[in-house]
Amino acid sequence: MTAAVLSIGTELTRGELVNTNASWISAGLTDLGFEVTEHSAVDDDKGRIVAALERLARGAKVVVCTGGLGPTTDDLTTEAVAAAVGVPIERDAASLDHIRRRFEKLGRTMSESNAKQADFPAGATILPNPIGTAPGFAVEVHGARAFFMPGVPREMKRMFDEHVVPRIRELAPNDSHQLRFRTFGLPESVVGEKLSGVEAGFPGVTIGYRAHFPEIEVKVLARAADRGAAVDLAERAAAEVQARLGEVIYGNGEDTFAGVVGRALRTRGWTLAIAESCTGGLVGHLLTKEPGASDFLLLDAVTYANSAKQAVLGVDEDALRGHGAVSAEVATRMADGARRVSGADVALAITGIAGPTGGSDTKPVGLVYLAVSTPKGTVVKEQTFPGERHWIQTLAAYVGLAMVRVACKNA
Amino acid sequence: MTAAVLSIGTELTRGELVNTNASWISAGLTDLGFEVTEHSAVDDDKGRIVAALERLARGAKVVVCTGGLGPTTDDLTTEAVAAAVGVPIERDAASLDHIRRRFEKLGRTMSESNAKQADFPAGATILPNPIGTAPGFAVEVHGARAFFMPGVPREMKRMFDEHVVPRIRELAPNDSHQLRFRTFGLPESVVGEKLSGVEAGFPGVTIGYRAHFPEIEVKVLARAADRGAAVDLAERAAAEVQARLGEVIYGNGEDTFAGVVGRALRTRGWTLAIAESCTGGLVGHLLTKEPGASDFLLLDAVTYANSAKQAVLGVDEDALRGHGAVSAEVATRMADGARRVSGADVALAITGIAGPTGGSDTKPVGLVYLAVSTPKGTVVKEQTFPGERHWIQTLAAYVGLAMVRVACKNA
Repeated sequence: MTAAVLSIGTELTRGELVNTNASWISAGLTDLGFEVTEHSAVDDDKGRIVAALERLARGAKVVVCTGGLGPTTDDLTTEAVAAAVGVPIERDAASLDHIRRRFEKLGRTMSESNAKQADFPAGATILPNPIGTAPGFAVEVHGARAFFMPGVPREMKRMFDEHVVPRIRELAPNDSHQLRFRTFGLPESVVGEKLSGVEAGFPGVTIGYRAHFPEIEVKVLARAADRGAAVDLAERAAAEVQARLGEVIYGNGEDTFAGVVGRALRTRGWTLAIAESCTGGLVGHLLTKEPGASDFLLLDAVTYANSAKQAVLGVDEDALRGHGAVSAEVATRMADGARRVSGADVALAITGIAGPTGGSDTKPVGLVYLAVSTPKGTVVKEQTFPGERHWIQTLAAYVGLAMVRVACKNA
Repeated sequence: MTAAVLSIGTELTRGELVNTNASWISAGLTDLGFEVTEHSAVDDDKGRIVAALERLARGAKVVVCTGGLGPTTDDLTTEAVAAAVGVPIERDAASLDHIRRRFEKLGRTMSESNAKQADFPAGATILPNPIGTAPGFAVEVHGARAFFMPGVPREMKRMFDEHVVPRIRELAPNDSHQLRFRTFGLPESVVGEKLSGVEAGFPGVTIGYRAHFPEIEVKVLARAADRGAAVDLAERAAAEVQARLGEVIYGNGEDTFAGVVGRALRTRGWTLAIAESCTGGLVGHLLTKEPGASDFLLLDAVTYANSAKQAVLGVDEDALRGHGAVSAEVATRMADGARRVSGADVALAITGIAGPTGGSDTKPVGLVYLAVSTPKGTVVKEQTFPGERHWIQTLAAYVGLAMVRVACKNA
């Protein structure tokens, strides 16, 4: 069963507002089991609203629209719908009364422009708006069920949940199920290759990919005769995906990489210290974005200057002078120093050249040394990361967190 | 001159991703003087991509498309464009070489699926992608100039600025001019109220707002008979905006708040140390995201545990025990300690309760103490920030940075 979303407003087509309504409604329709084939956003132009509505209504069984129900002259949705359906506009006495009472409650007088919000295409079903002035409405347009709601997200969400969902739920097939995996460590192309043939092996399954640098999310969507069969199919395909990707998968659904590393530390019962240089606090920020980092995090010493590496971590001047701040020796001393000064069980240190300047022939931009110090000893890794500053910093932070996770497992 | 935006990807129509690309591109096209009449987002379905592209190309002079250029089987844009234009697909040797070299630089072998990213509709103009594997391309579709770019925002933005804008600029009417201000410190509704009436006072001017938490961007767009008149009108309206908003404006255009603070430190010739607790490295991360932070940043000590506050910053146990870690006294000692241990000219300390747990009746979630230590003495501020963890951390980091900026000015 297909559905489409239409957003109306010049503030959208001019890019002044990000269209969060369209994604929220689409996610809701997808959850119900609809296949959303298109979002369209048009400016406040009656002809274009009519054309978009007619087109979407011809291609989908359900069309959910927002915006253009306000009191001003550029709010044209009701007019456009009446034109598309070929009916006159009628004023609804009950709605007018609701709007007038709303204004009275606020100690204001209703203006003529607000009275316009009680106008509907003849024959429309009115959808109440308990938290705003503009009611919504539902009509049939060229065989599709079309719903019109205000663009204000709060009002729209409540109207969708209370008045749209109950009217379309029985149309949804409820025959799909989706599982999601979060991965780090391979580029999208390699993840795709590793999973090539899974779709063919499990008819009804679609594998989707979503890159949120530096992660790739893998989505396994199964459609089958009914919901039970879809769950079963999704789970079998997901098992194949897990077998093929192995360690690259770090979690499911809403997991975050930092959250998974935090979990590994908690499981191991370890406290953590960090010493950062080129990543400038990013590792600490990733870990503390999640609640509960105080369970394990004692210290993140962002020792940006060499003097700070000496003063806070006790890195000796000879090491800095002899090997340079970006070296395996200094990374090792930073990790050992962070562990010593904080008393943590494990410490991660990262020192490198994030660029764009500061690189040389022997130490190019992107060169990073990462060290993990545990009671068993200190492991150090040299990596050269590609891309610009932000990439280098992010990849270094992730690789460092991955090293902490491995240390927790192997301890 | 009309333009349209087409976004391709099931992650959009399923509502898994908010379509920020469409609004960013629309804002760019609007800035150039185009009238953007529609955004459309379609799922990864070849037939629907072709239909949407043909429809948009018939209605607009420029069509800017993103997504579906990746290496996996659900990336269908190139195929769809070739079908819409009626040309075969050809592999481009130079692009293939670029992709292969990119992989070699990363020490990896290019896979066959990545080779697909060197395929283009015959006759297309290839748009280089210096920061990703997938090049973009431009073709003519039913008389419209159509551009195809990757969906990854970073790659898309750079390609749009460097390769799309120069190819469409001369098509735009060139009768508009836009100035942008970046603000921090007031909510969008209050910024809007302060600027109420500016549009009426300057006919032809539109004021737009864009919230990137915790900042509000204010855009002053002027349209006039010609470019010169538009520049003049925009500048006069912008002067009025500046007069009304005053200090709330921290910069223009592409300025970032951390960048402006870094500039203030450089101008003052000061070095900086930071001591963070509840912000967990965010202040350091914001400052070091920008290149050149090593000019001034010596140390960011994220002393998450009390023991670290003592060991690294020398905060005495009595202060921690008597006042608690979240107190004006401890904030002061953290700032003084960070300045002393690093030898920096100025130090910022932040300690608070980011939540969701850890609050109490006397010290609720959101309570944050910020201190700035300079040779003249230490200033401390108590604030209670609203919202959830991420909001509290971000607001605290911004307010702290603002205090550093003020200290630089007043020194």
